[in-house]
Amino acid sequence: MKLVRFGEAGAERPGVLDVEGAIRDLSGVVPDIAGDVLTKEGLEHIRRHDPASLPKAPEGVRIGACVGGVRNFIGVGLNFADHAAETGLRVPREPILFNKAPNCVVGPNDNVMLPKAAQKVDWEVELAFVIGDRASNVDEADALSHVAGVCICNDVTERHFQTERSGQWTKGKGCPTFGPLGPWLVTLDEAGDLDDLAMTLDVNGRRMQDGSTATMIFRVPYLLSYISTFMTLDPGDVVTTGTPPGVGMAMDPPVFLGAGDTVRLAISGLGEQTQTIVPWRDTSSGHGSSTYKTGFDIPR
Amino acid sequence: MKLVRFGEAGAERPGVLDVEGAIRDLSGVVPDIAGDVLTKEGLEHIRRHDPASLPKAPEGVRIGACVGGVRNFIGVGLNFADHAAETGLRVPREPILFNKAPNCVVGPNDNVMLPKAAQKVDWEVELAFVIGDRASNVDEADALSHVAGVCICNDVTERHFQTERSGQWTKGKGCPTFGPLGPWLVTLDEAGDLDDLAMTLDVNGRRMQDGSTATMIFRVPYLLSYISTFMTLDPGDVVTTGTPPGVGMAMDPPVFLGAGDTVRLAISGLGEQTQTIVPWRDTSSGHGSSTYKTGFDIPR
Repeated sequence: MKLVRFGEAGAERPGVLDVEGAIRDLSGVVPDIAGDVLTKEGLEHIRRHDPASLPKAPEGVRIGACVGGVRNFIGVGLNFADHAAETGLRVPREPILFNKAPNCVVGPNDNVMLPKAAQKVDWEVELAFVIGDRASNVDEADALSHVAGVCICNDVTERHFQTERSGQWTKGKGCPTFGPLGPWLVTLDEAGDLDDLAMTLDVNGRRMQDGSTATMIFRVPYLLSYISTFMTLDPGDVVTTGTPPGVGMAMDPPVFLGAGDTVRLAISGLGEQTQTIVPWRDTSSGHGSSTYKTGFDIPR
Repeated sequence: MKLVRFGEAGAERPGVLDVEGAIRDLSGVVPDIAGDVLTKEGLEHIRRHDPASLPKAPEGVRIGACVGGVRNFIGVGLNFADHAAETGLRVPREPILFNKAPNCVVGPNDNVMLPKAAQKVDWEVELAFVIGDRASNVDEADALSHVAGVCICNDVTERHFQTERSGQWTKGKGCPTFGPLGPWLVTLDEAGDLDDLAMTLDVNGRRMQDGSTATMIFRVPYLLSYISTFMTLDPGDVVTTGTPPGVGMAMDPPVFLGAGDTVRLAISGLGEQTQTIVPWRDTSSGHGSSTYKTGFDIPR
């Protein structure tokens, strides 16, 4: 299945692609593509419904992130030997893990906003996997049974924040809008060979990244097993698995994103993303779409 | 107010302490102490109810983490000059930030479980603050208006995972049960002077940490303002602000926690925590309390 979330930011509805690639509305089947819906039982429940029997979503509707309510959003660093080489850093002995703020998740074609103090905003096309069933100390051989599906992630990064502001990469990884996910969450039966997916990223029409998951150092099953020895992965948690060569910081001279640039990402079988880079603006007012909603309506 | 969550893990109810320190049930007032309930409007709504008019919670009921549905759980490293000295690391020029997995949050008196591959599990008594209103690029002078309240956090850490397993501290910070929070979320009007709170931690009755927030390098308003330049902080996000001297890794020889040890933490005005250290056991089955619930009941 290709699962999708569509509609206004913060009020997305769950959907699934039909055989013609049109979005069908799953609102009557599940409340969201998120959390407990992503378990084996949840996905099996969705499968029992023929997409052709479901209402069509409106033409041209906005596509949201393909998973909602993300809580733990983990990134893997330097996971392509050729990318590690271009950064001048050594290939790690073990996967490098960092966190992206869960509220940086946006739709695949939403604008990416420059942080207020941005200096070096960079792109990273990546394969992300989304947890289906809880995973704790999982064997590598059993790891894929804990994955609901995979999607494209642009692991947008502010390099100055990441490495020049005192320790730990998280500062440059979770800025607002730095986590486009989607367009689709593709279940494993339709995702092809995870070790042989072509990955490309263009900036303003120029090909910057042209790689393949074939050159990943640590593969999806190993990563899931490895991470699960340190922390429990819950349904809807997202792991983005690292980027191939061709990031802006490795150009000579380095190239970073500015307002007006467009970035286009593709991974074979997983669709495409296109983002426009926009200047910072104040988004601090309002409760916003990423606030944890308890179902509480404040009485007036 | 002293807000509290009580009842079975994963099914906690919201509560508030009355003048005698008894827990009163807020279930009829708000759905949880979490997310949007923590905004100024949400807290004001709670304040309009006299605790004496609310039902009493059962005697001896379990206390849960004082905030539910945590999504972004951030830690600050080396934030006490004397603690930085004992670790042999330099005082950072800027706050060091790392992430704890959101599903490591547990109640203040729940057991702390050793990870399966644990070698060096350590304690850290810390002051945590919980976000009330969304914060993005907030001025230091305005920062406290974005804080719902404060609580005790034991920033439990596996030192081998943290620093000896290839880059980024997150590996040693988010193991299951490594985030006891509570017992109470104390609103700022009742929390006293955040820059002068006594902090203690005892292991098996022996005083190991005896410090004060007075020796923090970066204070709460600065930290909130600083973090908000990198990422948006949403209602219910938690920031734990670093530990004073006296951690196990700094002992000569180092001392780490083992099964059967008990750890007792206190911060003046914020109550106490007591945890028993227990061996690893398999908690991978079942959906668990930390899975994001969409309100989806899988039809059978």
